[in-house]
Amino acid sequence: MWYGGDYNPEQWPEAVWAEDVALMRRAGVNLVSVGVFAWARLEPEEGRYAFDWLDRVLELLADGGIRVALATPTASPPPWFGLAYPDALTVNRDGVRLTHGSRDTYCLSAPAYRAACVRIARELARRYAGHPALALWHVHNEYGTACYCDHAAAAFRAWLRARYGDLDRLNEAWSTAFWSQHYSAWEQVLPPRATQYLPNPAHLLDFRRFLSAELLAAFGEQKAVLRQATPDVPVTTNFAFGGWVPVDQWQWSREVDLVAIDDYPSESGGGAEEQTAFAADLARSWAGGRPWLLMESAPNIIYTVDLPNGPHPPSRRMHTKEPGRMLRHSLSHVARGSRGAMFFQWRAPRGGAEQWHAAMVPHAGPDSRVFREVCELGGLLARLGEAGVADSRVVAEVAVVWDPQAWWALQGSHTPHADMDYLAAVRDAHRVLWRRGVAVDFVHPEAGLSAYRMVVVPRLYLVSDRAAANLASYVENGGHLVVTYFSGIVDAACRVRLGGYPGAFRDLLGIRVEEFYPLPAGETVDLSTGDVGRMWCERVHLTGAEAVARYAGGVLDGLPAITRHRHGAGAAWYVSTELADEAYARVLDEAYARVRGAPEPPPTGVELVRRTGQDATWLFALNHTDQPRQVAATGVDLVSGEQVTGAVRLAPGGAAVIRTGAAAPPHT
Amino acid sequence: MWYGGDYNPEQWPEAVWAEDVALMRRAGVNLVSVGVFAWARLEPEEGRYAFDWLDRVLELLADGGIRVALATPTASPPPWFGLAYPDALTVNRDGVRLTHGSRDTYCLSAPAYRAACVRIARELARRYAGHPALALWHVHNEYGTACYCDHAAAAFRAWLRARYGDLDRLNEAWSTAFWSQHYSAWEQVLPPRATQYLPNPAHLLDFRRFLSAELLAAFGEQKAVLRQATPDVPVTTNFAFGGWVPVDQWQWSREVDLVAIDDYPSESGGGAEEQTAFAADLARSWAGGRPWLLMESAPNIIYTVDLPNGPHPPSRRMHTKEPGRMLRHSLSHVARGSRGAMFFQWRAPRGGAEQWHAAMVPHAGPDSRVFREVCELGGLLARLGEAGVADSRVVAEVAVVWDPQAWWALQGSHTPHADMDYLAAVRDAHRVLWRRGVAVDFVHPEAGLSAYRMVVVPRLYLVSDRAAANLASYVENGGHLVVTYFSGIVDAACRVRLGGYPGAFRDLLGIRVEEFYPLPAGETVDLSTGDVGRMWCERVHLTGAEAVARYAGGVLDGLPAITRHRHGAGAAWYVSTELADEAYARVLDEAYARVRGAPEPPPTGVELVRRTGQDATWLFALNHTDQPRQVAATGVDLVSGEQVTGAVRLAPGGAAVIRTGAAAPPHT
Amino acid sequence: MWYGGDYNPEQWPEAVWAEDVALMRRAGVNLVSVGVFAWARLEPEEGRYAFDWLDRVLELLADGGIRVALATPTASPPPWFGLAYPDALTVNRDGVRLTHGSRDTYCLSAPAYRAACVRIARELARRYAGHPALALWHVHNEYGTACYCDHAAAAFRAWLRARYGDLDRLNEAWSTAFWSQHYSAWEQVLPPRATQYLPNPAHLLDFRRFLSAELLAAFGEQKAVLRQATPDVPVTTNFAFGGWVPVDQWQWSREVDLVAIDDYPSESGGGAEEQTAFAADLARSWAGGRPWLLMESAPNIIYTVDLPNGPHPPSRRMHTKEPGRMLRHSLSHVARGSRGAMFFQWRAPRGGAEQWHAAMVPHAGPDSRVFREVCELGGLLARLGEAGVADSRVVAEVAVVWDPQAWWALQGSHTPHADMDYLAAVRDAHRVLWRRGVAVDFVHPEAGLSAYRMVVVPRLYLVSDRAAANLASYVENGGHLVVTYFSGIVDAACRVRLGGYPGAFRDLLGIRVEEFYPLPAGETVDLSTGDVGRMWCERVHLTGAEAVARYAGGVLDGLPAITRHRHGAGAAWYVSTELADEAYARVLDEAYARVRGAPEPPPTGVELVRRTGQDATWLFALNHTDQPRQVAATGVDLVSGEQVTGAVRLAPGGAAVIRTGAAAPPHT
Repeated sequence: MWYGGDYNPEQWPEAVWAEDVALMRRAGVNLVSVGVFAWARLEPEEGRYAFDWLDRVLELLADGGIRVALATPTASPPPWFGLAYPDALTVNRDGVRLTHGSRDTYCLSAPAYRAACVRIARELARRYAGHPALALWHVHNEYGTACYCDHAAAAFRAWLRARYGDLDRLNEAWSTAFWSQHYSAWEQVLPPRATQYLPNPAHLLDFRRFLSAELLAAFGEQKAVLRQATPDVPVTTNFAFGGWVPVDQWQWSREVDLVAIDDYPSESGGGAEEQTAFAADLARSWAGGRPWLLMESAPNIIYTVDLPNGPHPPSRRMHTKEPGRMLRHSLSHVARGSRGAMFFQWRAPRGGAEQWHAAMVPHAGPDSRVFREVCELGGLLARLGEAGVADSRVVAEVAVVWDPQAWWALQGSHTPHADMDYLAAVRDAHRVLWRRGVAVDFVHPEAGLSAYRMVVVPRLYLVSDRAAANLASYVENGGHLVVTYFSGIVDAACRVRLGGYPGAFRDLLGIRVEEFYPLPAGETVDLSTGDVGRMWCERVHLTGAEAVARYAGGVLDGLPAITRHRHGAGAAWYVSTELADEAYARVLDEAYARVRGAPEPPPTGVELVRRTGQDATWLFALNHTDQPRQVAATGVDLVSGEQVTGAVRLAPGGAAVIRTGAAAPPHT
Repeated sequence: MWYGGDYNPEQWPEAVWAEDVALMRRAGVNLVSVGVFAWARLEPEEGRYAFDWLDRVLELLADGGIRVALATPTASPPPWFGLAYPDALTVNRDGVRLTHGSRDTYCLSAPAYRAACVRIARELARRYAGHPALALWHVHNEYGTACYCDHAAAAFRAWLRARYGDLDRLNEAWSTAFWSQHYSAWEQVLPPRATQYLPNPAHLLDFRRFLSAELLAAFGEQKAVLRQATPDVPVTTNFAFGGWVPVDQWQWSREVDLVAIDDYPSESGGGAEEQTAFAADLARSWAGGRPWLLMESAPNIIYTVDLPNGPHPPSRRMHTKEPGRMLRHSLSHVARGSRGAMFFQWRAPRGGAEQWHAAMVPHAGPDSRVFREVCELGGLLARLGEAGVADSRVVAEVAVVWDPQAWWALQGSHTPHADMDYLAAVRDAHRVLWRRGVAVDFVHPEAGLSAYRMVVVPRLYLVSDRAAANLASYVENGGHLVVTYFSGIVDAACRVRLGGYPGAFRDLLGIRVEEFYPLPAGETVDLSTGDVGRMWCERVHLTGAEAVARYAGGVLDGLPAITRHRHGAGAAWYVSTELADEAYARVLDEAYARVRGAPEPPPTGVELVRRTGQDATWLFALNHTDQPRQVAATGVDLVSGEQVTGAVRLAPGGAAVIRTGAAAPPHT
Repeated sequence: MWYGGDYNPEQWPEAVWAEDVALMRRAGVNLVSVGVFAWARLEPEEGRYAFDWLDRVLELLADGGIRVALATPTASPPPWFGLAYPDALTVNRDGVRLTHGSRDTYCLSAPAYRAACVRIARELARRYAGHPALALWHVHNEYGTACYCDHAAAAFRAWLRARYGDLDRLNEAWSTAFWSQHYSAWEQVLPPRATQYLPNPAHLLDFRRFLSAELLAAFGEQKAVLRQATPDVPVTTNFAFGGWVPVDQWQWSREVDLVAIDDYPSESGGGAEEQTAFAADLARSWAGGRPWLLMESAPNIIYTVDLPNGPHPPSRRMHTKEPGRMLRHSLSHVARGSRGAMFFQWRAPRGGAEQWHAAMVPHAGPDSRVFREVCELGGLLARLGEAGVADSRVVAEVAVVWDPQAWWALQGSHTPHADMDYLAAVRDAHRVLWRRGVAVDFVHPEAGLSAYRMVVVPRLYLVSDRAAANLASYVENGGHLVVTYFSGIVDAACRVRLGGYPGAFRDLLGIRVEEFYPLPAGETVDLSTGDVGRMWCERVHLTGAEAVARYAGGVLDGLPAITRHRHGAGAAWYVSTELADEAYARVLDEAYARVRGAPEPPPTGVELVRRTGQDATWLFALNHTDQPRQVAATGVDLVSGEQVTGAVRLAPGGAAVIRTGAAAPPHT
């Protein structure tokens, strides 16, 4: 189990470093990310490197038994860089060239920037190859910066040439016949810069795909020089998560030696726990079930935006995590396969833009609740590691489809309903299953699905032909599929599949949707089940399916709302409106019951994750409520160290990790 | 009766075209707009034209008996244009030069753009003069694009020179003595680009006037070359409607051979019907009572922004029109003088920015409710045409003043109350009268008014001296005038008329308003009538008028709120606060009753429009409710084909068109 | 007593001027600000001056016995200036160069602009030195314009060099080790232009400090040439107030001969009266207790933004002041030391961006409620002046700390709670005391405090070492201090003071705060007193203080919420959460009672201000309610002219000024 966080000794006088290492040892820290934002310190002027301070840091850490995820510092070029290469600074879509003063002010397609990145990565690799502290290379930070400058334009064109070969195919894919956008020469193709009115959605989508590929190529260049110098040291980068991030993690996960994520839930209530599990399940899925790493999380704070409540506008706020919550969040990740728990950052900084962000050693210092909980967590992780938790795996029989490209395709202002967020739909499906205690993998829609008894496809607006065939084949071979509305609508080039929605799935679902009825916020439509639909409903015709629920009243009175279609050896369900969680759960329960029997949900507010190993099984039980809870279990609770027989009692906010099976090795 | 819509064959493989024509024939389509956004296809590189595909399209249409409104494609220059003439791309007020990627990326004052427009218009005219399909020239699309570049600056100065002659008059008109804005040389005059703080309202107003004139000049250039080649083919352009559109339709209507409008209501509830009637009454009025054409409307969708409801933010949404609603909207236009019903667009596109917008043939194809209703409407329009509806006219005895320049003058952040929208006030007056079943014309404030028994002047902030004299003369000669608050405030140069409000109308109204009391949202002031005022009240002094209602309580307790003044042979009313519809209706009823007797409102939710011809009268009866309704009528119902005696029963959402008088010609 | 306002004769034909002077005399006006925005008229082309019209204006005024605050017109360069010196126009943080068309379009660091300012100031001084009308120099208008251009960058660097000496100290102060922002050469330092992500708070803060100094230097240049020409004429400028204004009034007040403020309350309800008193108390404090001048206020209007109420968005509105309110606002200023009452502006303009703003002679002309109240106020001020009110002073025993630099440090998006507004906290403290009838001074945190029995420190986020020592020393010497949460957090370089909050005050307060718990809007936390806290709470540990109130329930159950610490000869209170006004008042009452006895609050809605002179005391009693009120007093009421014995009765909305003591001189 790795335990630690971002360590930025350059922010502190050297006198503090020794205390840092002592405190790390006290907390059980065994891995720190060093140098993430240290470019200015490592290369104070172009071509002149200053590694002596880093030598001393690494030596101190090595002496303390702490390993290092050594970063290439390329996410924040120093001020001198922008003055030397103004053409390598970011240009936004309005044509404004940004200046240094924050971080990430560069164009990832600018030759000068790319060269500078490779150069400093090579220097670092040369210097620290073979260093005993070096455990991992941490390239860059949260790749995701977009640029609209002429360098970006040239790279975008090169990528498009490779993708489409000739302009005719690009024109066809982008539907440029609409609004006279036909390109007659490659140099006419530009990034989606500020324009007059609605942009072309295929143009936007391909620009995001290009960015994903371009950023990955930049990562690849650094990886290559690091690999050459240190063939045995794994190389990774930390994935950020958010609608602004143009990174297709399925593709990236194939290029990193270890999937690593940064996880910052944005809800301060119970949503934080659901978001945590969601991120961790994604990471495990990206990693193909192999171990991965929670590279960043916030030890003591949730950065939240409180939704409007009455006349108040939304307001940004740093919510302090209640006692015990950091430990539960960390265990939620570890239960789902993280090789440990890493935080941003080790010591709260005095100044800078993130002086109020989270830290393991807060401004108040080690004499603090937060640091005491940090130490407690360190001890627990050590025990889990020694007990062999890494030798077990989560086994999921249900999968939810996740495709960032479908997300990107739904971004923009051209769709029938502005509130149709892709992420929300996927989170809805995951949340409902999470509350039912059902283990969930995420899958790419073109991936093999035979391992799953049930697959849920939430709002998969964009579906490639291959994905459509894959999902159909899954059902034909006995799979059970639940598809929610506005799935299967456009092809890989964002073009509507004609002849009735959902064009990709009509045969599979045994329905034909003639038209949509988007609803305003607050309006509902009754269903024959007594439930209501929100946001959206559809004129559904049965072409083989049976109606499981019908609309009751209104324009669609009596028409099917939820359908089920036997197809091949399996069955495919369709949900044509937005259901509340309880009604959604009933649909999923019913589908699940046919393949697996009714799920056995955990007590309300308790999260249960089971891991299965060769010799033992593990039950992670997290009580997210402020009441005591009880869970059936027998074995050793690694949290309390006590033997549990029949049931374990969880204190309010408490957690247990019950190991059952072969005797665990003794722990300290 | 013309029936059809925008037809964009360039978006589809040629194989689809034959099906298009077959479906058009099935639907009764007889006119389509072709080529609106086809510049890239027609002129794939500068100076090289490709008309062969269009030849084939027009031949197919001609063979099918379908006429063509042939468009000049100048609303969307191809990508090559922007690369060849970067100085001809739009520059916004922040100085950002926009790029292609949407539509309308040009400066209408750029010589290169103007020349390219005339060139392609000339080529089209040369090619298709005398073509049997050619029925109408459709120039450009929705003129309205503003630009702030140096070309625009030069053209703005030229227009100002022509308007003012010398700088002294401009300085006087713009009140440049305020804040040291005096211009001492013409080159100092710029478009209202980004500046530090509040802009000069006269500067903003004249820029909008300039844009209207500049766009009209650009239209005129194209019209001239089309006229020369085809002297007998009418030339038009489609008017867009919205606060962003700098087009004075009174002036433009004199320059087009046929007034044509695009009508997109923005409210999904009953407001859509009021907006439809509003737009159609405007169009008929712009056309001076002559036939006009609904050039674009949405067959199946209302693009709406749902207002916030509780904590929800406003949200954009495409509301699907309920069954029957398309037909009622179309009849509302035809009843008010449209020569038919045209839609955007014929076939829903697979891709592009508007892939989700409305279409006559939806993504689901012809086997759909929408296309069936399209066919039904086509049949009805044909029957109406054969029955001679075009030979009748709407006769209105009430007029509402409409002046886009007063709208423009009220835009901006300098007024006493940000919620004082001009459009809202005019729509309020129209809506109240529409619900009372009163036929309404719109009039320019300087136009002849002798045809009307009552004229309503809602919030006419800006009034020229000539308009003020015209309205006074109307009353002196026996007219009845109702003026609402914040009318008659500034002169044509946006300068306050001094000495007590409303400076333009004090004598006419027999009052003097000393000061305003803008109210916050949600606050009301009581009136002696039991009604309440909102948003605004005023300290009114009588100088000849009598008080019809008084303020009750508050700072203005006992002072007049609504007044009436005998003036010459007529009378002038003044309403100094914002009334709810019911109270407003009572005021208008009372004024109307003195000239015409009480109005006989139709059943709630039923729209009635009467047309009068030589040989017959027509009653259009539209039931916008979901309940059956009954309306007194005798004659033939062209919708059902049945004879009606005494009363016609309207199904929920249904419509009837009762022709009374000489026997209509038999219909198919 | 000075009485008058901004007079802009250049906006009017010369024929109006004589009427202006006659009306001024009728109103009792004796001082007007002339020429504030007259640059274009005074220097119609570069280097050519036109003073003849101003000669005539000043002669007319002098003949009428009206003195002049003669302005330098530099707040609005004419259009010719921007064309001649485009590099001297403002550039915003996105790099957009603004154009003329409003006002204040200049860079205050541009050499051409600075030279032009000095030149026209010199010409004015030369022309009007010794003119009998000249009473005061009014330099510029509302200094505050920021610019991000290269001139500004150079000046910023020069200021930073002077502040820090070398780059090492700047890097240390700005915590540039965070995110690799280390500067290795001066030319790398830029204004905080558009950047990628969160900016550096120390960078932002120093840019505001620089702007304050830079603007002050520009003022100083003009002052020097005026002083040289007219050594005996006082020089001032009018301070604007708002979060956007980068002016440290404590520093500026030392450089002006007379503190002058513009006061525009933004709330239309009772908040306007609290804001008025707040501004006036600030002005008196900036002036060090010496007379100051209300240079601008709105005679008839409050510019307000109504807060959302239900689904309505916030809306800008000009609220008309109710009868009597202008007089009460003016008396609130005079009571607090203003040498009179000045307004913007004399005559409502016909056109221009502020045609709807306030005026003494409204659009309706002199036959108006507003002008009658203007005359009434003029008469009263004359009587007050003759009665010797200027010889008395306000004596306050309570001070509230005010530091604009703490305000600037809290601006930005990096803090733990977006709703933590500094101004709001200071206004809260002032409002609570104002309602209790307690006279309040504002003080700089480094100023001498021995005159005060109690000092309140609201949310003083940034505290210099010197300020911290000053406040501690105040308590040690017997002072009583009340500190509210999020005070004493960062040092002068915006760096967190480590080891437990509030780092600057731990010893003084006898507490140590371990962590914060920001709360969402609408959420409260119970206190042991029965009160509730909002917005924020803290984990407080006692290290010498006693708990006055504790948290009840929740994560902080039982921990101290409000504390009191005997320290030296005094005591220091700490309030760790946001209290409602009533609970806040109880804390302040309790603290105050220990030093002074319970305050005797005035009747609800009545404002009382006492002035003490050699021979007389003055009681200003303002009834802000719509009910009659009574106040104990004996003497002569200068408003009614009547003798008052025992009590004065205030009419609804009425005012009294009771002079007690030596017989006042007879008044006209």
